[in-house]
Amino acid sequence: MSSSEFMEQLNQKALSLLQGDADKIEKLIEVQMENLATRKCPLYEEVLDTQMYGFSREVDFAVRAGLVHEAIGKEILSKLERNLAVLYEALNVKE
Amino acid sequence: MSSSEFMEQLNQKALSLLQGDADKIEKLIEVQMENLATRKCPLYEEVLDTQMYGFSREVDFAVRAGLVHEAIGKEILSKLERNLAVLYEALNVKE
Repeated sequence: MSSSEFMEQLNQKALSLLQGDADKIEKLIEVQMENLATRKCPLYEEVLDTQMYGFSREVDFAVRAGLVHEAIGKEILSKLERNLAVLYEALNVKE
Repeated sequence: MSSSEFMEQLNQKALSLLQGDADKIEKLIEVQMENLATRKCPLYEEVLDTQMYGFSREVDFAVRAGLVHEAIGKEILSKLERNLAVLYEALNVKE
């Protein structure tokens, strides 16, 4: 395998790991959105913020290690942040 | 460059990034240890805990991406955790 094929594989793996972690946070956001009408767990926001912070550190590391393009890393994070903002807005309306 | 030389370079880069981040947390611990006698910043523990969490996510990602051996990742984290424990013990003695 050539170095470039090898790097391609590593890039794919890194992206798929990050996407998997992003999906988990996405799922947390969805669950809380579905539960808006019934109950609000006060710890949810804190858990989500912590998860987002940890995830942003993963993305940052992947970018610095040269595994993921900076623009792609930013895109993954921005998408999550937008969904999180929608959730927080919905939570504030409920309050 | 062969795939194995290439991987070697990537491993070195990943390790050096992680070590740099570990050094920053180490520095935070040292600064607080030096300030024990004079003042205690109440936010220091929270900042350190957050930094440690973010760092553990970086290490975990590097291990999952196959850039760093699990044992080495654990060792870097354990060393920081031991130093942090020494700091917290010292902080509790002062209280």
